[in-house]
Amino acid sequence: MTKNLDLFFNPKSVAIIGASRNPQKIGHIVLKNFVEEGFAGKVFPVNPDADQILNLKSYPTVKDIHDDVDAAVILTPADVIAKILKDCGEKKIRAVTIISSGFKEIGSRGEKIESELKKIIEKYKINVIGPNCLGIFDTTSQVDMLFLPAYRLGRPQKGTIAFITQSGAFGSVILDWAAQEGFGISKFISYGNAIDIDEIDFLEYLGNDQETKVITVYLEGANRARELIEIGKKVSKIKPILCLKAGGSKRGAAATQSHTGSLAGSDEIYSAAFKQAGIIRVQTIEEMFDYARALATQPLMKGNRIAIITDGGGFGVMATDYAEQEGLIVEEVSEQTKKKMMKCTLPFATLHNPIDLTGSASSAMYRCALEATMADKNIDALLVILLFQPPNIESDVIAHLLEVKSKYQKPMLVCSAGGNYTQLHRDILERSGIPTYPTPDRAIKSLAILYKYTQIKAKQH
Amino acid sequence: MTKNLDLFFNPKSVAIIGASRNPQKIGHIVLKNFVEEGFAGKVFPVNPDADQILNLKSYPTVKDIHDDVDAAVILTPADVIAKILKDCGEKKIRAVTIISSGFKEIGSRGEKIESELKKIIEKYKINVIGPNCLGIFDTTSQVDMLFLPAYRLGRPQKGTIAFITQSGAFGSVILDWAAQEGFGISKFISYGNAIDIDEIDFLEYLGNDQETKVITVYLEGANRARELIEIGKKVSKIKPILCLKAGGSKRGAAATQSHTGSLAGSDEIYSAAFKQAGIIRVQTIEEMFDYARALATQPLMKGNRIAIITDGGGFGVMATDYAEQEGLIVEEVSEQTKKKMMKCTLPFATLHNPIDLTGSASSAMYRCALEATMADKNIDALLVILLFQPPNIESDVIAHLLEVKSKYQKPMLVCSAGGNYTQLHRDILERSGIPTYPTPDRAIKSLAILYKYTQIKAKQH
Repeated sequence: MTKNLDLFFNPKSVAIIGASRNPQKIGHIVLKNFVEEGFAGKVFPVNPDADQILNLKSYPTVKDIHDDVDAAVILTPADVIAKILKDCGEKKIRAVTIISSGFKEIGSRGEKIESELKKIIEKYKINVIGPNCLGIFDTTSQVDMLFLPAYRLGRPQKGTIAFITQSGAFGSVILDWAAQEGFGISKFISYGNAIDIDEIDFLEYLGNDQETKVITVYLEGANRARELIEIGKKVSKIKPILCLKAGGSKRGAAATQSHTGSLAGSDEIYSAAFKQAGIIRVQTIEEMFDYARALATQPLMKGNRIAIITDGGGFGVMATDYAEQEGLIVEEVSEQTKKKMMKCTLPFATLHNPIDLTGSASSAMYRCALEATMADKNIDALLVILLFQPPNIESDVIAHLLEVKSKYQKPMLVCSAGGNYTQLHRDILERSGIPTYPTPDRAIKSLAILYKYTQIKAKQH
Repeated sequence: MTKNLDLFFNPKSVAIIGASRNPQKIGHIVLKNFVEEGFAGKVFPVNPDADQILNLKSYPTVKDIHDDVDAAVILTPADVIAKILKDCGEKKIRAVTIISSGFKEIGSRGEKIESELKKIIEKYKINVIGPNCLGIFDTTSQVDMLFLPAYRLGRPQKGTIAFITQSGAFGSVILDWAAQEGFGISKFISYGNAIDIDEIDFLEYLGNDQETKVITVYLEGANRARELIEIGKKVSKIKPILCLKAGGSKRGAAATQSHTGSLAGSDEIYSAAFKQAGIIRVQTIEEMFDYARALATQPLMKGNRIAIITDGGGFGVMATDYAEQEGLIVEEVSEQTKKKMMKCTLPFATLHNPIDLTGSASSAMYRCALEATMADKNIDALLVILLFQPPNIESDVIAHLLEVKSKYQKPMLVCSAGGNYTQLHRDILERSGIPTYPTPDRAIKSLAILYKYTQIKAKQH
């Protein structure tokens, strides 16, 4: 049965169970998120020892709330949660997120509580996220269950990458990092022990989510392999899925068991299942977000022939090496393209692909070379290596890039490496929808993934 | 014959040929570097059209300077350089760097000038760096030939990593990046077309350089393969050499020819030669500096058994996976170590390696776990995963790390991922001599290289 997950992301009213007046406590931080960050629904603090928290009336239990309650977030110690969940069931709350830890990840005592919870879930037909998780952060509805203050855990801007994670810590790091790098997130989901809702439910839900263009997943172990393949196939037709599967090593697998209590399973089996499902497996965090940024912003890449434009010869050479390793072709540009470029580049520029405008290149030369190569029918995508150290490149080159990009339905990625001055320009590009990478290998691998997803999509249809 | 390269790095007097009064010109920027940045020797501007530049008397030619001149930097157009180099020869200047481009990299006309220069070099026994290069930046003597202003091209702090690059653009990017990341550099050398002095000469020189602990090289093609192996063997006994060799792909090789005019040669041959020479080949810029930072600061790693301490379970699992892939063993810690940790960690912490202090870990728990594992004879090196998102980690954990590290002769690397708050702490660690990586794969691969170099060193003896 497909679960109604929308209540988690777009509740009209939410109870914060374990809300606290103490600003240090997670029950305070989460309540504050809901009250102060733009969540449009009603918020009900639940705490038997308080009358009022953050100027809101506090209730002893959810059953004391007279309004309807769509969703609840539980932040109390594990021992009392069975009772609380039962209250939620009786109050007909359908979407409950249990943030608290102290369950199967700590051994038999926690396992016992979990089986109790499962019976309550069954009986009252509640949908539950968690326990032992960070819950949800939704940049549209501003549902924010993250119990860490923003100075420790930055909140990323609104965007189109969804991120599902089995590990809470992993998730918190990714959010914080995405906030700093300027990567936009649609929905963040940390689901922990997955007592009820798991990654497969979320995959299905996000497959239909209009806000989400790319789904990224951090997984230690999946319990429903067959469904993973089925749902993966269905969703990867619509949008790309990237998965970082950890716990593949012998000792790593043992460690996952004490971590999220899941069995990691054979690494080869996962690789085969992902392939069948059209899920793109990544090996590192960098890969996951490098690829996601490209997939979230760029059109499909119709073929594997790329052009490289550079103002640093060495970077052009390196990018060409990487392209060959990744199965991309650094195709010769047409004679017409060369002629166009000859009119506006330096006499000692190299107009063979990789096109080297040299360290004397100006912004205007970039503009001209960009126009010519984007229009070239031999070329399916463009890597622009844009080094800001050479003296004649000015900030206006950014405007040229954005303008040329907007005219063509072809992927364009940028590689820009260096210090603060570079970082300044990289941020502008990134926030304008042109993913910008600090090294040529990362940019080239991202182009290769754009091509790979185009193939996956074609195959699934 | 071994060349006397020391005059390039530590000249008592230097002539800047092509010095200019125009602040936009490279002849002005380079002169200014020498005058204003702490270079202790005498500086002579050479420009036939000026009497004085930056308050220094300017000379029509080097022959008009009455003092002895140890070194010269040439910044004039290519056409007039033969005449200037002859003047340098007659003035008995032994160390000449030609920054200017317009030589073999532009084709036959430039090649002709190069062969002229070679004859003059031969006749006057001059040592020449370049042409078509950035020359030298030495953080000790403050010889700074970089013709780009600091806002575009940051100058890194003093450190122990030397960097030799065939590509100027590549070099400029690396410097700028190193400046921002806080990586310390001893000497930077961009040698361009290598009309006289090449990477092998520099390798030999840096092998004996007291300021340099690690040598990094960006290479497109080497002309003296046999000598590369010989010198490599000699130097890698003393200190590690890391080499990023580009131009390995077919099209990349073609591109190097128009770039630095060198023949790239077969990629497999290079790999074999590097192996024989004890040179560690890297594939990406990130690898080069990830490894260099570890090698420059950490002691030899006597075996391949590592401990992982983390406050984020998922990161511990991932690091364990990567360790297995890289041939490192996540060894069980001793019973004694576990007992020590049990006294000061949380009851639900995992004390099996990877040691998971959990998201509730405090700075004091880190201190205790660090002490216990560093003292453990089963463990050859430590990876500390230190996530700053969890609520109980405070900045004092940095002091604990540094103190424990100082007591043991074992490598310790840190992985710390996240946004601004993390970056702040990462910078402190990095500048205190504990390399800190943003992802677990990069930290683990760096540990693996520490072990690899230990083996190389053992083999060469």
